[in-house]
Amino acid sequence: MDTIPYQQMVDEFHRVLIATGFTDDDAYTLAGVFAGNSRDGVPSHGLNRFPGFIEDVISGRVRIDARARADAALGAMEQWDGQRGPGVLNGLACMGRAIELAQQFTVGAVALRNTSHWMRAGTYGLQAADAGCIGICWTNTTKLMPAYGGLDKRLGNNPLVMAIPRPDGDHVLLDMAISQFSGGRTGTHKRSGEAFPVPGGYDAQGRLTTDAAAMERPLPIGHWKGSGLALCLDLVAALLSAGKTTTQVARQGNEAGVSQLYLAFDLSRVGDADTIAATVQDTLADLVSGEMVPGEQVSWPGQRSAEKRRAAARDGVPVELQFWEQVLAL
Amino acid sequence: MDTIPYQQMVDEFHRVLIATGFTDDDAYTLAGVFAGNSRDGVPSHGLNRFPGFIEDVISGRVRIDARARADAALGAMEQWDGQRGPGVLNGLACMGRAIELAQQFTVGAVALRNTSHWMRAGTYGLQAADAGCIGICWTNTTKLMPAYGGLDKRLGNNPLVMAIPRPDGDHVLLDMAISQFSGGRTGTHKRSGEAFPVPGGYDAQGRLTTDAAAMERPLPIGHWKGSGLALCLDLVAALLSAGKTTTQVARQGNEAGVSQLYLAFDLSRVGDADTIAATVQDTLADLVSGEMVPGEQVSWPGQRSAEKRRAAARDGVPVELQFWEQVLAL
Repeated sequence: MDTIPYQQMVDEFHRVLIATGFTDDDAYTLAGVFAGNSRDGVPSHGLNRFPGFIEDVISGRVRIDARARADAALGAMEQWDGQRGPGVLNGLACMGRAIELAQQFTVGAVALRNTSHWMRAGTYGLQAADAGCIGICWTNTTKLMPAYGGLDKRLGNNPLVMAIPRPDGDHVLLDMAISQFSGGRTGTHKRSGEAFPVPGGYDAQGRLTTDAAAMERPLPIGHWKGSGLALCLDLVAALLSAGKTTTQVARQGNEAGVSQLYLAFDLSRVGDADTIAATVQDTLADLVSGEMVPGEQVSWPGQRSAEKRRAAARDGVPVELQFWEQVLAL
Repeated sequence: MDTIPYQQMVDEFHRVLIATGFTDDDAYTLAGVFAGNSRDGVPSHGLNRFPGFIEDVISGRVRIDARARADAALGAMEQWDGQRGPGVLNGLACMGRAIELAQQFTVGAVALRNTSHWMRAGTYGLQAADAGCIGICWTNTTKLMPAYGGLDKRLGNNPLVMAIPRPDGDHVLLDMAISQFSGGRTGTHKRSGEAFPVPGGYDAQGRLTTDAAAMERPLPIGHWKGSGLALCLDLVAALLSAGKTTTQVARQGNEAGVSQLYLAFDLSRVGDADTIAATVQDTLADLVSGEMVPGEQVSWPGQRSAEKRRAAARDGVPVELQFWEQVLAL
């Protein structure tokens, strides 16, 4: 695959963002997040999504001048209104505030309503982990998958993040849509034609399929379990933020004004840093040291994206050239 | 199936608990929880588990006189030490305290280490919902399933609960082990010989199987996703409680001294009760009103257990007589 040096990608995104009307500060922040997502192996919410983000800003679907603001301070939790501003900037502000609350109360929560797409969910988990916090966050989405037993889409795939800091910065990072495959990964498989390693959903005949192009209805992880989990994540984010549920988002006809929850736990208030790091290391080392399925390799969540991050620093960020050329032309 | 009136089951459990050495108050609390679990359709952690619990108390594995106590007050979060007391009493105390913290700070957290099996995870979610709170909690366990790509068991199945209150008491309740099937349900299928509706794990030849008896390695929900989720739930509970991870629990050779996290969010501090109830109702009604897979019925998490609860109040609690007779003989 072709590669572009990370800094060149940041600079190019920055150029486009300035031309679109962002301030210098916001342009650097956004450019770093989009380039970082590609660098970490999540191009579906990095380079590949960048042109669509610019389009959303130009069309006014994402309001360039709007920013999330605190509406209600409720102790260790706050409610914020995202005002349909850029989801990445809103997300960073809200996890940033959750971290501050955690520094004061050990646990801190910000519930955000009325925001736009936050791109890669893991961004905000890494933000918390970089600050020495456990970060947990999730978003709802519009209707993307049926409930267990249902035929039509009624649930969001509601990506969920859990991040646990490690001293070397290679944080444990779970970042998962509640569908077996995210929209981004489904798109990658559609373009490449490569089969999913396990069934990702149902085809038009209601059969489970590993063919992304034939998949009409994504499968929730664990069947009824993911179906229930997606529903609960949706309700919790919407109720705590006084925002829209998936049902209400979908009624608008386009995905806008979603609800999110950001939780941080400040580990420096909880225990000794060396003991915590040793406990994490002990478990990760144990996890990857067992007997493997032939041809498989056990890894901990975040391990592969940390490896990709290092490889990209050395070799450049892998890109699908069609997307890079789109950005150059913006 | 045979049935026993709910109150008769409570009284019988109470008799045995008093004879085992519990105080009258604790015996009523425990009897209500065990009988309630069977009443709600979770006999694996109700009647069927009761004789084993008594055995654990008599053997001293569960310390009858030990109770969880607060070790560190850290703002909106507290660390508690369960002292290997009865997991149900410890769990009720810790979710109770998380609810109090949520009444003060909107979000409240109690991280509990060194506790024994809490039986049905959903118990503590319902406790929070009965208090008008969103309840989220989870526990780690000993090693029960391999990580994705691995052959030997390295992960707990770490049951996770999310509960959202409804005014009529039929709360939304997700209560799920991170394996596709819990140990309790696997046991039920082993005894009945009934096939799982979807593959539950791998047989000795490494093939996915729906035969509970042939299953050697349980499958995490969503393959790599549940594998990562189980790891993160484990680390978060252990780090926040300064307790043992699954790796550390398993080194002891038996499951004792597990780590748990209890989170409560007080909805009365967050928004108007009628609006909240209407939002939940709107989403649940939408969920169950779609087109169904022929022969299937969409339900929201907790709906079936609420129906079983009402049926049991009318018709008695369904029991497998072998377990009821074991209790009568205690």
